[in-house]
Amino acid sequence: MNNQADIGVVGLAVMGENLILNMESKGVTVACYNRTTRKVDDFINGRAAGKNIIGCHTVEALAGTLKRPRKVMCMIKAGAPVDAFIESVMPHLEAGDIIIDGGNANFVDTNRRVAAVARQGLHFVGAGISGGEEGALLGPSIMPGGAAAAWASVRPIFQKICAYTDDGEPCCDWVGEGGAGHFVKMVHNGIEYGDMQLISETYQMMKQGLGLSNAAMADVFAKWNNGPLNSYLIEITRDILGYRDENNEAVVDQILDTAGQKGTGKWTAINALDVGQPLTLIGEAVFARCLSALKDERTAAAGVLKGPQTVFEGDRTAMIDDLEQALYAAKIVSYAQGYQLMRAVAAEQGWDLNYGGIALMWRGGCIIRSAFLGRIKAAFDTDAGPVNLLLAPFFRQALETAQDGWRRVAGTAVQLGIPLPAIGAALAYYDGYRAERLPANLLQAQRDYFGAHTYERIDRPRGMFFHTNWTGRGGTTASSTYNR
Amino acid sequence: MNNQADIGVVGLAVMGENLILNMESKGVTVACYNRTTRKVDDFINGRAAGKNIIGCHTVEALAGTLKRPRKVMCMIKAGAPVDAFIESVMPHLEAGDIIIDGGNANFVDTNRRVAAVARQGLHFVGAGISGGEEGALLGPSIMPGGAAAAWASVRPIFQKICAYTDDGEPCCDWVGEGGAGHFVKMVHNGIEYGDMQLISETYQMMKQGLGLSNAAMADVFAKWNNGPLNSYLIEITRDILGYRDENNEAVVDQILDTAGQKGTGKWTAINALDVGQPLTLIGEAVFARCLSALKDERTAAAGVLKGPQTVFEGDRTAMIDDLEQALYAAKIVSYAQGYQLMRAVAAEQGWDLNYGGIALMWRGGCIIRSAFLGRIKAAFDTDAGPVNLLLAPFFRQALETAQDGWRRVAGTAVQLGIPLPAIGAALAYYDGYRAERLPANLLQAQRDYFGAHTYERIDRPRGMFFHTNWTGRGGTTASSTYNR
Repeated sequence: MNNQADIGVVGLAVMGENLILNMESKGVTVACYNRTTRKVDDFINGRAAGKNIIGCHTVEALAGTLKRPRKVMCMIKAGAPVDAFIESVMPHLEAGDIIIDGGNANFVDTNRRVAAVARQGLHFVGAGISGGEEGALLGPSIMPGGAAAAWASVRPIFQKICAYTDDGEPCCDWVGEGGAGHFVKMVHNGIEYGDMQLISETYQMMKQGLGLSNAAMADVFAKWNNGPLNSYLIEITRDILGYRDENNEAVVDQILDTAGQKGTGKWTAINALDVGQPLTLIGEAVFARCLSALKDERTAAAGVLKGPQTVFEGDRTAMIDDLEQALYAAKIVSYAQGYQLMRAVAAEQGWDLNYGGIALMWRGGCIIRSAFLGRIKAAFDTDAGPVNLLLAPFFRQALETAQDGWRRVAGTAVQLGIPLPAIGAALAYYDGYRAERLPANLLQAQRDYFGAHTYERIDRPRGMFFHTNWTGRGGTTASSTYNR
Repeated sequence: MNNQADIGVVGLAVMGENLILNMESKGVTVACYNRTTRKVDDFINGRAAGKNIIGCHTVEALAGTLKRPRKVMCMIKAGAPVDAFIESVMPHLEAGDIIIDGGNANFVDTNRRVAAVARQGLHFVGAGISGGEEGALLGPSIMPGGAAAAWASVRPIFQKICAYTDDGEPCCDWVGEGGAGHFVKMVHNGIEYGDMQLISETYQMMKQGLGLSNAAMADVFAKWNNGPLNSYLIEITRDILGYRDENNEAVVDQILDTAGQKGTGKWTAINALDVGQPLTLIGEAVFARCLSALKDERTAAAGVLKGPQTVFEGDRTAMIDDLEQALYAAKIVSYAQGYQLMRAVAAEQGWDLNYGGIALMWRGGCIIRSAFLGRIKAAFDTDAGPVNLLLAPFFRQALETAQDGWRRVAGTAVQLGIPLPAIGAALAYYDGYRAERLPANLLQAQRDYFGAHTYERIDRPRGMFFHTNWTGRGGTTASSTYNR
């Protein structure tokens, strides 16, 4: 059994199992291990039966089965378990061997692990993987980063199992140093939060505002999937709304309306706050999940807090078309914000990210795959790419066309009392980004008034700070070291 | 000079200086020290001249001047400087002495410092102080927490120098253990971010949408200050809009519209994300500052991204009244969200916070002081207090009255292309909080479809999780350990 496996995979939850089956189907010999070893046996005797997959009951045995340089990939829960796994596998590895983390690690942890593992003469790769259950099995999007020296060894396997675009391009390429791969995956997931929230808001508007049936909404999403919104998430939304179980029951109506959010969406929003980039849409998407989780409070409040009595009396078909425009425009804003975050963090970390290449990696295999990403790739293929996606000619034009409908949707929702936090936040961002003058001058005046925080002036160079003694009572001592 | 000072203050920026002068004016003998000792001399020979204030050139000398138990209060930049100061002062202190941090520390750091200092037999107090330059001088709001054993020694000084409500209650009381004081101050600052952003949005709407002059807007804020919005921030906004410098120039128009945000507002939003509480309004307020900082990008985008051609043709007076309602309602939402965060973090940290008492501490002295906070205090004085402030009878009624105007403002802004991110986010939160059914059921269906993440059902007990094989292709392996 020794030295025959191309790669070892650790962790046999759904993603790990499916990646192994995907690899095996492409001719890769895979060894696997799981801490609860019963799972190894179950897998080997179950889904892996008769396949070229080697089950191991110890990390040492796993390491023993691998060709050199050894490639050990963990598909386990992010955080401390990954550090524990690295500790446990290192004694069984040699210089030049490669540890790959295919989970949803925080990129700051991956930065740290790449450096720590390198100090032992080994290579660490943090690879973001998207595509869910089915993507892992049939071809996910893979975003690897970390020790560049490992890429030549890992590439043949990753580019065998990943998704491909219709043009035959692999949805996997080297992202950059340190945690760059996990960072880009994090932004992908943040964008995924946004896409899901935006779709959910159009559903809420159609259901609550327009009174459409599940079947009618399935038809709407089917139609949208044939237009510029064509994407995996629109497609599965169509299927979900059309799905009935064996009792002819619409399952979507039976699902509790509370969503979890303890993961990468939250990290994306926190990262945006840390680097000072306005990711309002993803922020609202994460908070919308938080609010959904307060189900008992909402149920109690629903009986007490009054809304408007207005009912929709407009043209349903026209409003559905407006919703398509609103969803499209808000989606453009969401991706523009995500790309702004990538620019800011790349600058901070010293990464040279290939923005068009990232769009290409997301073009297939992953949850946010869409026709739209081809447009983003195209936008970055011209010259240096736009400073902000909103300014790329294609998207600028799309927003100009979409905005009337977008504004009608936002205004109608407000009058009907239907919450569309992300669609509304996107519109406020659009109007804010194109505002040469925002009211922050007043805000700076307030800060200078109460805290002597000083301000810059429009008629003086940046970096010169002024203080006004607004009340005639304050002193001249400025707030130099005491930051609020 | 030995053993005669009641307290030592370290750090002579504007807050430190003003607190010292405040203390001295109340009969407290203060010793002071600053790392750059020239500042000590400047202060002693300047604003402190002829007053009962002792200047020290070393930490050791400062400690030598103090009565026991010694009370040393630092008013320095948050973060590493505070740790460095603690290290430097500890060798000069004895068991039972008290170190107070009056800066804007992150409460997690204060949790750590309280424990670390206690291990040396000393007491650490983290005291949030609000009121800005003038508040520090004349009476700030003080929110102390940490080593409860220190309170009896600190209280006489703090309750001498703090603000008092019109009813004669001190705007300073013991908040709780560990970092509770700094936490409550952080939430105060987050709410301050929200209040400032909301006011700025009404300004933007009046200026850009209604074309009002500074003088006209000053009159509006003067009028609002006589109604339910009566508050310090409305008052200074009135003054700022009415202020002209010696050249008869409206200073507010000369101030650059870019705001900083690297502080406590950001921490509040991150904390909310961490504990899963939807603080959408403060989040938008922080992000609005981030967007304001992208001044060059906005200026470039303003010439390129098209807005609507709509101009306001309604009744200006009526819209100004609507704006008052919108500001009032959004403010209620902002405080409701802030209190939700306090509840969640108190539960996590094991703190027993006095919510009415917190409103009372904010009632005077601090930046967000307002008549409104008296209403919040009253709401928490009844029984156990509301689960959410929105549900308190007074606020529920206020929202019912305000919401028509609020909706007209949000709808009009959307049609005019004026960004009101916080007012809009507040309305979406209100409509979301009172929604018994949110679209998170669709979102959970999507997650189960692509990632086998399972869902709960409306017809089954909470905690039971179900998976649907939506495509007929997926396996039965659920995503138990691989969390997205």
